[in-house]
Amino acid sequence: MAEINKILVANRGEIALRVIRTCKELGKETVAVYSTPDADAPHVLQADESVHIGPAASSESYLVIDKIIQVAKDTGADAIHPGYGFLSENADFSRRCQEEGIIFIGPKPKAIRLMGDKTEAREIMSKADVPFPPGTKKELEDVEEAEKIADDIGYPVLVKAAAGGGGKGMRIVNNKNEFRSGIKAAKSEARNSFGDDRVYIEKYLVEPRHVEFQIIADEHGNTFHVFDRECSIQRRHQKVIEEAPCSILTPELRSEMAEAAIAAAEAVDYVGAGTIEFLVDAERNFYFLEMNTRLQVEHPVTELITGLDLVALQILVAEGKELPMTQDEIQMNGHAVECRIYAEDPRDNFLPSTGTLSKHRIPSGNGVRVDSGVEEGQKITINYDPMISKLCTYGNDRDHAIKRMLRALDEYEIAGCRTTIPFCKYVLNHESFTSGDYDTHFVPDYFSREKIDAAITDESEVKALAAALLKMEDSGQEEEQKLKSNSPNGVYSKWWKHRSKKR
Amino acid sequence: MAEINKILVANRGEIALRVIRTCKELGKETVAVYSTPDADAPHVLQADESVHIGPAASSESYLVIDKIIQVAKDTGADAIHPGYGFLSENADFSRRCQEEGIIFIGPKPKAIRLMGDKTEAREIMSKADVPFPPGTKKELEDVEEAEKIADDIGYPVLVKAAAGGGGKGMRIVNNKNEFRSGIKAAKSEARNSFGDDRVYIEKYLVEPRHVEFQIIADEHGNTFHVFDRECSIQRRHQKVIEEAPCSILTPELRSEMAEAAIAAAEAVDYVGAGTIEFLVDAERNFYFLEMNTRLQVEHPVTELITGLDLVALQILVAEGKELPMTQDEIQMNGHAVECRIYAEDPRDNFLPSTGTLSKHRIPSGNGVRVDSGVEEGQKITINYDPMISKLCTYGNDRDHAIKRMLRALDEYEIAGCRTTIPFCKYVLNHESFTSGDYDTHFVPDYFSREKIDAAITDESEVKALAAALLKMEDSGQEEEQKLKSNSPNGVYSKWWKHRSKKR
Repeated sequence: MAEINKILVANRGEIALRVIRTCKELGKETVAVYSTPDADAPHVLQADESVHIGPAASSESYLVIDKIIQVAKDTGADAIHPGYGFLSENADFSRRCQEEGIIFIGPKPKAIRLMGDKTEAREIMSKADVPFPPGTKKELEDVEEAEKIADDIGYPVLVKAAAGGGGKGMRIVNNKNEFRSGIKAAKSEARNSFGDDRVYIEKYLVEPRHVEFQIIADEHGNTFHVFDRECSIQRRHQKVIEEAPCSILTPELRSEMAEAAIAAAEAVDYVGAGTIEFLVDAERNFYFLEMNTRLQVEHPVTELITGLDLVALQILVAEGKELPMTQDEIQMNGHAVECRIYAEDPRDNFLPSTGTLSKHRIPSGNGVRVDSGVEEGQKITINYDPMISKLCTYGNDRDHAIKRMLRALDEYEIAGCRTTIPFCKYVLNHESFTSGDYDTHFVPDYFSREKIDAAITDESEVKALAAALLKMEDSGQEEEQKLKSNSPNGVYSKWWKHRSKKR
Repeated sequence: MAEINKILVANRGEIALRVIRTCKELGKETVAVYSTPDADAPHVLQADESVHIGPAASSESYLVIDKIIQVAKDTGADAIHPGYGFLSENADFSRRCQEEGIIFIGPKPKAIRLMGDKTEAREIMSKADVPFPPGTKKELEDVEEAEKIADDIGYPVLVKAAAGGGGKGMRIVNNKNEFRSGIKAAKSEARNSFGDDRVYIEKYLVEPRHVEFQIIADEHGNTFHVFDRECSIQRRHQKVIEEAPCSILTPELRSEMAEAAIAAAEAVDYVGAGTIEFLVDAERNFYFLEMNTRLQVEHPVTELITGLDLVALQILVAEGKELPMTQDEIQMNGHAVECRIYAEDPRDNFLPSTGTLSKHRIPSGNGVRVDSGVEEGQKITINYDPMISKLCTYGNDRDHAIKRMLRALDEYEIAGCRTTIPFCKYVLNHESFTSGDYDTHFVPDYFSREKIDAAITDESEVKALAAALLKMEDSGQEEEQKLKSNSPNGVYSKWWKHRSKKR
């Protein structure tokens, strides 16, 4: 047991701020690191100390192990929290911390390495009886044998890079004729992307749901699950809307999957917070997808339904302490939804929409949680992930949480860049989403630029117009006429109706 | 049963916005009313419709029953939510709504009237076996008899105006010699304040705690308690920091008090949300203080520990529906604290600090809820209560919720007026508060202008200084020296330490 006094947060943006907040609540000192464009970011201002580590490029700042370690030594930090992304799943970084006598707030190097290698993970998980989609048990060595397996399980099949993950390095093969050329192309892609051409094949699931289990484990043999999250709303394999719990799990299926998740974590002697991702098919069979050996972006929905602070538990476990509860004492209540709000233009193929955040008024009130790493007046640049915030709502049930999310999205005021708020509203209002009858193909199946146009002429535009009109109210009819003829479809008249009732 | 479609919110500020938010989540249309200075307040902008009802003075706008009723008719609102304050405990208003066929989202006129008259309430509560402090059973008619009762219960005694409430119209009589003159003065005060000179006497409790129970009742005979709140931190009988649950209640005392609270509500056939306030003495005897027949300012702490939406339940009950749960299904988890953030200067006897809110960046993240009725750029005027927001935090236990509150208070950035944030920090850091060993005299006992000075040179001043320095960083040493010599004690050097580590 080693009490941690000072934590270096080796990350930026909302997750760095989120970790710092918990550190403050625990009375731990914090050290922020930052690249040049992040000099005045909230995570820098909120930390007790902050150290500049290089220019914008992550490869010269947030990803440089030597620099991070040096800052930890210079500031006397006794632990490092890696957040997600950057060095969070880098086994070398975890090992280096160990060697330098700095506590890495995350799993041991071995667990990271094993879970990072998809074929090794597959082998270990199989031994632990964690279910897999039918397919080759390890990387593909004999193409003929693989072809026979593909015949057995039936097309379409998926060719996956052993070194891939997070949706990268996958290829669908639709029929026998495509098989050999598909394997060849997949290997070549894998070599180019990961420097590792090992691939394996598995059954391609139709209408799959992405369902994951949060795990927390200590060094004293306690490995608990903290329930499930539903993350099927994805765009190009990136989650965009998540919820907890998953609405399609029966209590029986939930406990079966939780048991498998715990078995998976125990199979690699996992310590810390981690997530076992599964795919669930139309018949409600579930299959291991991968394990993320870090805190997930979407962890707040789990915190909302359990009342736990997962970062606080990560720190406690990293101090070598025993988890202060039993599995049965981890209870869930109600329902939570998260929308990732990006500075991306949903009308223009989600291209990053950079600029100065000239207005950033976050929604608030009952059941609303916002995790943001940027402030009004700051720049959204192309240097990093263009996420503005994670907006979460909590409700007594799924319908309540969704309605509250729509209310919160309506309240959210952002100016200076386009955002994915209209996209989120589109999804949350869609019948397939509200009924719960959808899968990971929701976005390609239902979303298009055209469908969002109605949603874009929304409250925020009405409000911007209202503000402009208020200012020119006494400056005569001419200005108002000009604005009227320039306003997008319906917005002016909508506002006028509202305003005339006020008069 | 009458489904409500459109709700007029007869209030302003945070509570009007809070009601509108729930209406949106329930799919109910909303009508805001506003006085001239509130024309662009958030509650006006968030409502579906809004109607101007008069000048700043409440007596010509928010308190004019005829105007409110007329707006409801004009807009086709089928219900009125009164919020708290203004017309919320006005029996005439409730009756008038009834007569006009508009649903009043609150109790029936009779319940408001009975509970508004302290001596009548006392009589009804006594019959329902709700405990009272020893004293005269009804208003004082015979001074000699009253003097005998005062002798029996022992001095000090409290002389209270029958028409008083919320701490108004009370006078302490310390000994027998002061008794007759005390009664005379109290009667004269009561006549002047309430136009009603009836008074009664009761035992003055030493070291009392203010503990209240939230009640919700429907028309179908269900009267449930929604647990307790501790509101002993008061300044001049006005609550400033509240929490839920109360930390001094044993499970036995909690269930005894809850039973008394339900009996009190049932004794007046109460329907809707209400609060039974009790005083608890050093020996943990509890006594009825008064019933508030409306939503309380501090209701969010109850929502945080139960997951319920009290406004949604108010509306449901007003529609004549049955409460959708049993008493046993109302469960509490964790702990919540609320700080009322006022535009008042704690260094200058809490004088209202008016001005334009040039900065208003609310705290956020895990376990933080903000209810605010003003936005950055708006004016805080002397027309109304100078409350900027209610900041609530939720934690696994009291200590956790308090630490999270301190974190959130540190994050809160307000510029343009002085606020009570340093006062809140002072209280939350005070040993008597954190240990739970305090009573309603906390503020006079422990707080003074001098004691807060250290707390005022806080993070927000460091941040303001940091921002100023960042801007002049390249403009040479001279400016920096000027700022340095003008900065309050320690702030500059604190910032410099922080900044130099960054370099």
